[in-house]
Amino acid sequence: MGRWEPGAGSRLREAALALYLERGFEQTMVADIAERAGVTARTFFRHFADKREVLFDGSSELEEKSVAALEAAPATASALDAVAAALDAVAGMVGGDREFARTRQTVIMANADLRERELIKLASMSAVLADRLRRRGVGDTEAGLAAETGVAVFRVAFERWINATEDRDLRDVIRETLAQLRALTAAG
Amino acid sequence: MGRWEPGAGSRLREAALALYLERGFEQTMVADIAERAGVTARTFFRHFADKREVLFDGSSELEEKSVAALEAAPATASALDAVAAALDAVAGMVGGDREFARTRQTVIMANADLRERELIKLASMSAVLADRLRRRGVGDTEAGLAAETGVAVFRVAFERWINATEDRDLRDVIRETLAQLRALTAAG
Repeated sequence: MGRWEPGAGSRLREAALALYLERGFEQTMVADIAERAGVTARTFFRHFADKREVLFDGSSELEEKSVAALEAAPATASALDAVAAALDAVAGMVGGDREFARTRQTVIMANADLRERELIKLASMSAVLADRLRRRGVGDTEAGLAAETGVAVFRVAFERWINATEDRDLRDVIRETLAQLRALTAAG
Repeated sequence: MGRWEPGAGSRLREAALALYLERGFEQTMVADIAERAGVTARTFFRHFADKREVLFDGSSELEEKSVAALEAAPATASALDAVAAALDAVAGMVGGDREFARTRQTVIMANADLRERELIKLASMSAVLADRLRRRGVGDTEAGLAAETGVAVFRVAFERWINATEDRDLRDVIRETLAQLRALTAAG
């Protein structure tokens, strides 16, 4: 096996997801993943720090892109609109492959440690977005609320998107969910 | 030391909080807590399963009371108003001692495991409230949104309450924060 292995990363990811689903995350070893992907364990570790990272390696890029989108929102945009722009960027990244997203979610929901990791990821994104809103001059409470609410909308929309019968654009589902939030808070 | 030790539970809690703050949660042993409270380690374990439970032993009661309050809300109440009733009940339970709440928060924020535990607690409360809203006939997305948003409001309000200069009623801060959310979603 040479040093140059085109597509090894995506083959490893696919093999890992399939095994996590079949045997459970706990029961899957790095050696199993490498074997199914047809590479060595050493190749696995050139792509991922550990088996958990297969599921979370996009997290920091996700955070960066969402922050960039928030900061690119016009100064006149409301706090919630700026957060909506950030969610749009996140949807653009994770909304491309619903089959992958759905499998990943099934694997995560089946394991307490992974669920925690996912909660932490979203809490961290909320904290970062709130911080950037404050730097844009948004008041302390308003910034916290807009960021927390935005992440809440994302969670609900994401869940809807992966469970929907038809394959819709995640961005549309998020926009729709945000509109539902507006209706909800206006009503009650 | 007899079997009957009035106030041992609250003495232990107070001793534990003080030690977690002074030395850090990790560095505090059950024996240290018992010693400071003037009881044996055995007495500690009659009150708490472990040192983490000193911080989280009210969680299930909190969840029960919030659910009871949501279910007691009139059938005509909007989803968000029903969640607001649940938050009111939570505030009634945790809002009585700001000094304790503030110390507990400081201890939790200083430790990654405790932060995770707190996130899980709130996520669990959100899931339970959403489930009860669905049983009341609230649509799936709306139920998820109202519960997630409610918990978001609670987090932001709680943070404000413990950091405020004056000692306010947590329920008022929650109501105010909810009003800010309505303004925020109406504006943007």
